[in-house]
Amino acid sequence: MTETPSAYARLVARFARIATLGEAAAMLNWDAAAMMPAGGAAARGDQLAVLAGIGHGFLVAPEVADDLDAAEAAGVDGDAWRAADLRLMRHAHTRATAVPGALVEAQTRANAACEKVWREARARRDFALVAPHLAEVLRLVREQAAALGPALGLAPYDALMDGYQRGIGLADVAPVFAAYEAFLRDALPQAEALQAAQPTPIRPRGPFPAEAQEALCKRLAAAAGLDPGHARIDRSAHPFCGGTPTDIRITTRYEEEDFARALMAVMHETGHALYERGLPAAWARQPVGEAAGMAAHESQSLIIEMQACRSDPYLRWLAPQLAAMFGGDPVAYDPENLGRLWRRVARSFIRVDADEMTYPAHVILRLRLEQALVAGDLAVSDLPGAWNEGMRALLGITPQDDAQGCLQDIHWYDGAFGYFPSYTLGAMAAAQLMAAARRAEPGLDTALAAGDLAPLIRWLRTNVHECASLLGFNDLLRAATGKPLDPSDFAAHLTARYLT
Amino acid sequence: MTETPSAYARLVARFARIATLGEAAAMLNWDAAAMMPAGGAAARGDQLAVLAGIGHGFLVAPEVADDLDAAEAAGVDGDAWRAADLRLMRHAHTRATAVPGALVEAQTRANAACEKVWREARARRDFALVAPHLAEVLRLVREQAAALGPALGLAPYDALMDGYQRGIGLADVAPVFAAYEAFLRDALPQAEALQAAQPTPIRPRGPFPAEAQEALCKRLAAAAGLDPGHARIDRSAHPFCGGTPTDIRITTRYEEEDFARALMAVMHETGHALYERGLPAAWARQPVGEAAGMAAHESQSLIIEMQACRSDPYLRWLAPQLAAMFGGDPVAYDPENLGRLWRRVARSFIRVDADEMTYPAHVILRLRLEQALVAGDLAVSDLPGAWNEGMRALLGITPQDDAQGCLQDIHWYDGAFGYFPSYTLGAMAAAQLMAAARRAEPGLDTALAAGDLAPLIRWLRTNVHECASLLGFNDLLRAATGKPLDPSDFAAHLTARYLT
Repeated sequence: MTETPSAYARLVARFARIATLGEAAAMLNWDAAAMMPAGGAAARGDQLAVLAGIGHGFLVAPEVADDLDAAEAAGVDGDAWRAADLRLMRHAHTRATAVPGALVEAQTRANAACEKVWREARARRDFALVAPHLAEVLRLVREQAAALGPALGLAPYDALMDGYQRGIGLADVAPVFAAYEAFLRDALPQAEALQAAQPTPIRPRGPFPAEAQEALCKRLAAAAGLDPGHARIDRSAHPFCGGTPTDIRITTRYEEEDFARALMAVMHETGHALYERGLPAAWARQPVGEAAGMAAHESQSLIIEMQACRSDPYLRWLAPQLAAMFGGDPVAYDPENLGRLWRRVARSFIRVDADEMTYPAHVILRLRLEQALVAGDLAVSDLPGAWNEGMRALLGITPQDDAQGCLQDIHWYDGAFGYFPSYTLGAMAAAQLMAAARRAEPGLDTALAAGDLAPLIRWLRTNVHECASLLGFNDLLRAATGKPLDPSDFAAHLTARYLT
Repeated sequence: MTETPSAYARLVARFARIATLGEAAAMLNWDAAAMMPAGGAAARGDQLAVLAGIGHGFLVAPEVADDLDAAEAAGVDGDAWRAADLRLMRHAHTRATAVPGALVEAQTRANAACEKVWREARARRDFALVAPHLAEVLRLVREQAAALGPALGLAPYDALMDGYQRGIGLADVAPVFAAYEAFLRDALPQAEALQAAQPTPIRPRGPFPAEAQEALCKRLAAAAGLDPGHARIDRSAHPFCGGTPTDIRITTRYEEEDFARALMAVMHETGHALYERGLPAAWARQPVGEAAGMAAHESQSLIIEMQACRSDPYLRWLAPQLAAMFGGDPVAYDPENLGRLWRRVARSFIRVDADEMTYPAHVILRLRLEQALVAGDLAVSDLPGAWNEGMRALLGITPQDDAQGCLQDIHWYDGAFGYFPSYTLGAMAAAQLMAAARRAEPGLDTALAAGDLAPLIRWLRTNVHECASLLGFNDLLRAATGKPLDPSDFAAHLTARYLT
């Protein structure tokens, strides 16, 4: 005899099915970036669209609302995980049903068209080319925000942010970012002055064959705890961490002149990977079993890359191995030299190349601008001017053209508004978590000096990875570190690394 | 104003969706064999099951029957392609709905369980271990055949064959195979005698590094017409051709002691790939746009591997290139030596290692046994004895154990009954098509002598690839060669190659 499944059990099965479709899409996305011959692109687009359409259909099916109502009425026996799971199911359903299908389709089309023109506009350094497309993308994003906001009980921009990182809004972010801006005003010139007084770093001389770099990256990722029985490292135009929790797919690209870019990119992606690997298997494919959001994810990549792998103790362990592997001038492989080289502060135009101290300024600028765009306070035609003015105010530099300015990132041109804050929230959370981990694991730095990330990762596993989406961003930080997001740990980290 | 789509148009959209899900599954299957870390297996199984379940659901949905009825009643304006498409939609729907869902599930479970035990039984050379599992698989296959037969208007075994190659049944195959058996009785000893009078072939001495073999395979596949913009060649435990028509994924494995195995495997898979690449794009993702079946597919792999690439003119072109690439004893790279080496006739136990003359004997034995198993005329417990007796009668040799006998192939243990004939039907069709191509393209052999497969492939494209599933197997052969399947072309090919 089979018992009729409860409404919650039906939802669990449905969300597992949706997540499994998402896994298939994740593998196809990885393949498209890392393996697929160019001629497969059109068919791959169709495959992904069909999978997305079916998954969306499962999520918005009429019976889901009934099951959600019934499950909420029945309750979940006070089980916090089930309660959070059900809450997140409702949240996903609300987001999916709040936006009319016609708007979703219009956005898909407009984003694709805009992204295509953006590539040309960036290459030609000609914002005017893409401006009308961006205006259309923005118009639809504003419609989307207007539909999502009331459904979620959030202000329009917060409703967009919620799509990338739940549990934190503009009211949380604004004071944190303002405090950082104030910190940076004094800290940046001070760091530059100290840096100028130090020896100029020497760059190890290549070429460094891609195969040797790849072997190194695989070895270091494995040493950091990435199990090759559940992960691959391949090549693509841009590094990313894709795949699924039991089948991680990291990619990077190798530049023969500089091994550090690939190496640090792989350690960054390894941080993302370890988070996915550490999610609780018992809640796999359920909303509550997913990573807690983009900012939480970025905290895990940055804690490995920036906090651990660019730290003095880790570099002291790493440097002699690099010297043995690549040879060349021993002075270049001195750990102090590598520290100066890989932690160089500079006022620069391109966010993805920025150091950890100036990076938040790039994000603060974008947040300010995208908020104004969504609110209707900034016209698309005024974006380049506002961008350049903002760069002058924040970093005192002026882009020579829009490729160095408002054309540099894909996000807006692909319809992603509300994403940028996650990068800096992640950086700040990484510092906050690292400080807490150091308090809890006194041997953490001694281990790092032996290339051993185990104490750090053990602590992260318990305090972050295994919590999955049980808690929102600030509550997760509170449980792990005793306080909500607090930029002072990040400032203290930067002070220790750059100002002493 | 949008017109309401016709019933046929709705079916076209539905079958395109089903095919697109199938493409996603094809890529995931390739990935599982060629890329996936072992730890991804469980999740991958779930992903494939969900995709298969959704595709099946689309095919058996109640509205499909209504649309088929309506489209058949409305007709397709005398368009032969649409008519065939609609016929094949009906056929797919009939096959999918004839078998109860509970039986499909029972078969999936029983096949998986049996296949697993089969691996152990084969390793231990112990048929008794797997016999009860095979009996259960067979019991369900007989139920399946009993359900399919009446629905398709076919005898039970023909209904199983139909699942692999439509348009040909036991009544077509039996006389063809009987004629071959008669041919082989004289031809085999004669070929052996002639071979014994020839110099013993010399095997090129390795090791041949896998990277060099891989480069060679990629070069020869590209030279044969496989566009790298639409295809990859990777490594897996067993060679196969997967992917989709615009994104072909060939795999092989490289043995350092013998480059010929990978080389010929890749040319074989290239034949499959060129067929997929040559299917009419206008009918992509429609039943009529698919390859005409497993036997038709095998004819395309074997015409490239066996008819073209093992021919004297091609070997004369290939041999000096191999010598230049791998070096070593020049005598071993003499084209006549390579011909003797790569076309050696031998009575052997293992089908997949058999030469092209004895290979059909392996298939004839399997057809006879599986037919008797499905008919209930042979008990599973009597299979090993019947197998060994059959091998003695056909090839005059007796397996030492069941690993050399009825445990060697996965097919039955995975529930695949009715598949084996396709191999030999394909070999025979390849010879028949080659003879017709030679008549139509007088420069074909001159081109082969320059390593140029273009005239052959041009002819195949027009006469086979572009016909897709417009015609059944025998009608396809009739249109291309002027007659239905006729084993005399294969016999003539073997006579020319081995008996003169």
